[in-house]
Amino acid sequence: MIRGYLLDLDGTVYRGEHLIPGAKETIAELRRRGRKVVFLSNKPLYSREDYAAKLTRLGIPTSKDEVINSSLVLAEHLAREAPGSKVFIIGEIPLLKELWQAGLNITEVPEEVEYVIAAFDRTFDYRKLNIAFQALKRGAHFYATNPDRTCPVEGGEIPDAAAVIAALEATTGRKVEKIFGKPSRYMIQTALEVLGLPPEKCAMVGDRLETDIRMAKENGLTAILVLTGVTRPEDLKDSPFQPDYVLPSLAELPALDAEIGGEE
Amino acid sequence: MIRGYLLDLDGTVYRGEHLIPGAKETIAELRRRGRKVVFLSNKPLYSREDYAAKLTRLGIPTSKDEVINSSLVLAEHLAREAPGSKVFIIGEIPLLKELWQAGLNITEVPEEVEYVIAAFDRTFDYRKLNIAFQALKRGAHFYATNPDRTCPVEGGEIPDAAAVIAALEATTGRKVEKIFGKPSRYMIQTALEVLGLPPEKCAMVGDRLETDIRMAKENGLTAILVLTGVTRPEDLKDSPFQPDYVLPSLAELPALDAEIGGEE
Repeated sequence: MIRGYLLDLDGTVYRGEHLIPGAKETIAELRRRGRKVVFLSNKPLYSREDYAAKLTRLGIPTSKDEVINSSLVLAEHLAREAPGSKVFIIGEIPLLKELWQAGLNITEVPEEVEYVIAAFDRTFDYRKLNIAFQALKRGAHFYATNPDRTCPVEGGEIPDAAAVIAALEATTGRKVEKIFGKPSRYMIQTALEVLGLPPEKCAMVGDRLETDIRMAKENGLTAILVLTGVTRPEDLKDSPFQPDYVLPSLAELPALDAEIGGEE
Repeated sequence: MIRGYLLDLDGTVYRGEHLIPGAKETIAELRRRGRKVVFLSNKPLYSREDYAAKLTRLGIPTSKDEVINSSLVLAEHLAREAPGSKVFIIGEIPLLKELWQAGLNITEVPEEVEYVIAAFDRTFDYRKLNIAFQALKRGAHFYATNPDRTCPVEGGEIPDAAAVIAALEATTGRKVEKIFGKPSRYMIQTALEVLGLPPEKCAMVGDRLETDIRMAKENGLTAILVLTGVTRPEDLKDSPFQPDYVLPSLAELPALDAEIGGEE
């Protein structure tokens, strides 16, 4: 009896600046039925406010608290594990802001750094690489926001956080210790806390087998694949990550919810 | 009957700005005996002229043609394999200059790039990473100057070319096709051409088991380890790369040459 939905954004709710047809109506209908809905993104490039504003602009009224991105999951984890600790971040301003708001101290002095954070960073350069390298050689923890190789953009894709993680692993000989974006259990845990529901009452809806579907299956959630993103029907047979349901798009979710949804 | 010597530089001939005691006298004596000597470096940060000038300043008169670095090996290989081809380089100015002097065309337009060159680059940034990424996704060849994880500097070490190679491999899902520095056979081939000698008449002298000694053994040269660099005697027992001779330093090479050297 599903009562909460975790919705991936790009490829599921929208593509770039355009809503997937039916997405707006589906989310309105789920909310009307009393379902709880949160939106998930691996991207640490934008703040949760940015995502909420975009969804609202596109016709899906959303508050910051309904958005969970890898920056938030990391910030909450660090704030609990090592409150006020000193971090060095290879990342962009919205990530720095999220960590700063969580009470962490940002430093660029390798000798002081307790946690190195590798993220998607379009301002990545050798100076940052070397600061992180020196801190890791001195024993700092090695965390990352998200494991993605590439990020889709208008007309193609660009290098994502995997570039930063790989550069640090190759030069230090160390392995990243924790990654907080999909498909990590940390992201699911944060989402379930926000929803206030156990995993068996939640469904994850997304377009990627190796992140969305994998994370749902590994954590006891119902897994729903939509075909409006990167996955084609023929990709399913070769994947170790098999969804419980496959929908053409989010437009078909209310009909499925009528079947799998329920109340207390 | 050894007639030519390939000498590693840092850790073998000098450490930073200081000659290894006896190095100057050894090289003068080898030359007096008619031995041919070349100097090898993986570092693409300096030109061969820079190395020749440094050695000359330290008391070992050297010409540019006696210095072989990964930039030269790469430039000569590309000039033969694909003369005038279009290359994009993640590297510093001396490497660009070496490739330009070899008749290659440097471009930053991903659609034009035929060869992506990953190198040690202290000016590495996301812009360069993305140009290389886009070119590799379009099918450009993927070469690298040297495989080193780190480069020793005064008081420590800094990230080397492995950072750039790993970032590109992780994001493109491709593997680097050719690496030209030690321990590659390309570097040995260039050195033997410069010396005009077959491998069995040459000895490689260096301080690193996994590069200098490995390259010598894999290519039929006599391998001589010196203990003035990174290798300690106890490292030898765990290594798959075993030198033919171990010397405390370059100072002891004339005595060994008296034993293993010879004429036509």
